[in-house]
Amino acid sequence: MKIITLTTDFKNLYPASMKAVILDMCEDPTFIDLTHDIEQGDILSAAFALYTTTHFFPSGTIHLAVVDPGVGTSRKAIIVRTANHYFVGPDNGLLIPAAQRFGDIEVFEIEEKAMLGKVSNTFHGRDIFAPTAGLLASGHEAEDIGQPLETFEELSFGEVNAAVNNLYGKVLYIDSFGNVITNIPAKILEAFARPTEKLLVHGNVASYSPTYGKVQKNELLVLTGSHGFLEIAVNGGNAAQRLDIAGHPEIRIEK
Amino acid sequence: MKIITLTTDFKNLYPASMKAVILDMCEDPTFIDLTHDIEQGDILSAAFALYTTTHFFPSGTIHLAVVDPGVGTSRKAIIVRTANHYFVGPDNGLLIPAAQRFGDIEVFEIEEKAMLGKVSNTFHGRDIFAPTAGLLASGHEAEDIGQPLETFEELSFGEVNAAVNNLYGKVLYIDSFGNVITNIPAKILEAFARPTEKLLVHGNVASYSPTYGKVQKNELLVLTGSHGFLEIAVNGGNAAQRLDIAGHPEIRIEK
Amino acid sequence: MKIITLTTDFKNLYPASMKAVILDMCEDPTFIDLTHDIEQGDILSAAFALYTTTHFFPSGTIHLAVVDPGVGTSRKAIIVRTANHYFVGPDNGLLIPAAQRFGDIEVFEIEEKAMLGKVSNTFHGRDIFAPTAGLLASGHEAEDIGQPLETFEELSFGEVNAAVNNLYGKVLYIDSFGNVITNIPAKILEAFARPTEKLLVHGNVASYSPTYGKVQKNELLVLTGSHGFLEIAVNGGNAAQRLDIAGHPEIRIEK
Repeated sequence: MKIITLTTDFKNLYPASMKAVILDMCEDPTFIDLTHDIEQGDILSAAFALYTTTHFFPSGTIHLAVVDPGVGTSRKAIIVRTANHYFVGPDNGLLIPAAQRFGDIEVFEIEEKAMLGKVSNTFHGRDIFAPTAGLLASGHEAEDIGQPLETFEELSFGEVNAAVNNLYGKVLYIDSFGNVITNIPAKILEAFARPTEKLLVHGNVASYSPTYGKVQKNELLVLTGSHGFLEIAVNGGNAAQRLDIAGHPEIRIEK
Repeated sequence: MKIITLTTDFKNLYPASMKAVILDMCEDPTFIDLTHDIEQGDILSAAFALYTTTHFFPSGTIHLAVVDPGVGTSRKAIIVRTANHYFVGPDNGLLIPAAQRFGDIEVFEIEEKAMLGKVSNTFHGRDIFAPTAGLLASGHEAEDIGQPLETFEELSFGEVNAAVNNLYGKVLYIDSFGNVITNIPAKILEAFARPTEKLLVHGNVASYSPTYGKVQKNELLVLTGSHGFLEIAVNGGNAAQRLDIAGHPEIRIEK
Repeated sequence: MKIITLTTDFKNLYPASMKAVILDMCEDPTFIDLTHDIEQGDILSAAFALYTTTHFFPSGTIHLAVVDPGVGTSRKAIIVRTANHYFVGPDNGLLIPAAQRFGDIEVFEIEEKAMLGKVSNTFHGRDIFAPTAGLLASGHEAEDIGQPLETFEELSFGEVNAAVNNLYGKVLYIDSFGNVITNIPAKILEAFARPTEKLLVHGNVASYSPTYGKVQKNELLVLTGSHGFLEIAVNGGNAAQRLDIAGHPEIRIEK
């Protein structure tokens, strides 16, 4: 069983072309779609999706991720190798936080000449990244496909500041329920607030609660999300809409 | 071949975490996504999706369903065993109509201590239900994972009343075309209306027709849907929008 | 490994019923969803999705496609056989451009009596097309399931006209980024425009560019898309929204 995950901002159709190319190269892969609903070009959200999901997969999984506003420009195409997983995608920081969660990483620049067919300017998912995943899935080594790369694009989840009465951080991801997930680690939240304490999120009162269903319906809450970060939610509702949050703004939690 | 279906209101990303957990527990499962587009917390729509789909799957299929507004509260986690299928999910009625369609059911309360890792307060799909499906898929019995449960949450599809000139029922599901599917069985509709008869749906004239394309484009129709229930549709259009129907209101069909 | 692709306008839930039926008929198929997000009844967009994707799949793949506004009327159900691939769906032109890309085709009308269960009037995807794919996947020949059909519905991608200062064509597909893909072949575009030349698309200035990221952010561009056709895009934006294009209008590119 060779597992290949896919993460893109393609929504539909284009992921199938990538799978077709891989099916033509290797025997019976198992495809798992992480998400194809990343906002167009939103590298940070995709990096977070990878960061919070890929470590649940078995050893040997190949993670193919394409959020690639620089396709066809001089940005490189890379393989990132960790102890037991591979990541394949553009060199724009997308793959790095998830890969580094596994420990030490090695980065390789994919050589276009390792690709069999003509490479388009606009769909490297199909023409470079999928064939690379197909080569890895059929037993090739990263060294066969690319050259070691010393310098690559990093991506930071941003600074967190904790004072006695304030937490400052940044929105990393808004999930499909409208839950707002920040870069503030659970431990910092748990040291900051007492159970059921009232907090202020951008001036709105929110209860600190262990889970959604322990506050009133439609009430704003702050909790430790399942990803291990401070999350802002509305029980039965949509916190991002309630607070008019989109993208990756700074976030402030006050007592 | 071990088939596991998934039904959630997660839209994207979170189903992949559930699959990752299962892939780490059993050899080469086949995942089939029923739908992840259930409205947030809409247990009845999800129960209907399961009810109309799961009986087409082969014997031995495991149906994992998570529409779970009570996650982290005192609601139980359950396994429902039928003659040949398993259902896994929260004890909020979600699983029961589909399971009872197979005949007699046995219900087990999942014991958290059967789970290997730490259980979050907000994502039992990943931390309890997926591991349970993984255990069942790798040959464990329901008795190994939980305790028999005498009392569990039921879920009713609601009353239907048929008079000479009126049918009363309830909306169970609005599909992606905007077709409005009710709880009124086909047999009651077929006894009520003559072929091509004009009916009134909330005051709007609709033809009773065997299929969409046998009325004019954009015309409202009432038909026996593929699920075996009275369905309200617009040929080439969206009946829910036309009639301003959302959720699960009562429905009245008049002559 | 038996690969079955699925292309529909069903969005969600109904594709799972089709897969269930197939799983009950053949051993361990590999399902690949091309897209289920085709606009309701938009046969041309679905035909284009098939045309640009199916030829990447390995020999022996079965392509099941259901965009079927005429379900339950007198329109036929067909199998199209090419040298190495099968297509299954309604006889409304949907399958033909993709199938003809493989060379000569043979068309068979599916006989309802080859189906095991009761056939609904409204969901032939589940009751006729999926069982047909299941029969083909388990080794049956097209001749076992249907009768050769001499006359079938064709579908044209439309005329293209190229003058010295004008290109005329038609919109075939709007992708999930809002890129507008026309029926004008890359070769005609490449003979028409010089690199980086400014063109007019419905009166709007657009750069002719090899890829999105080589023009300014939010700038309109004309390029050779990854499908091999003239494509209109906005770097980091949505060209269909910018130009207010929906459906399949005529398109004019001027110097």
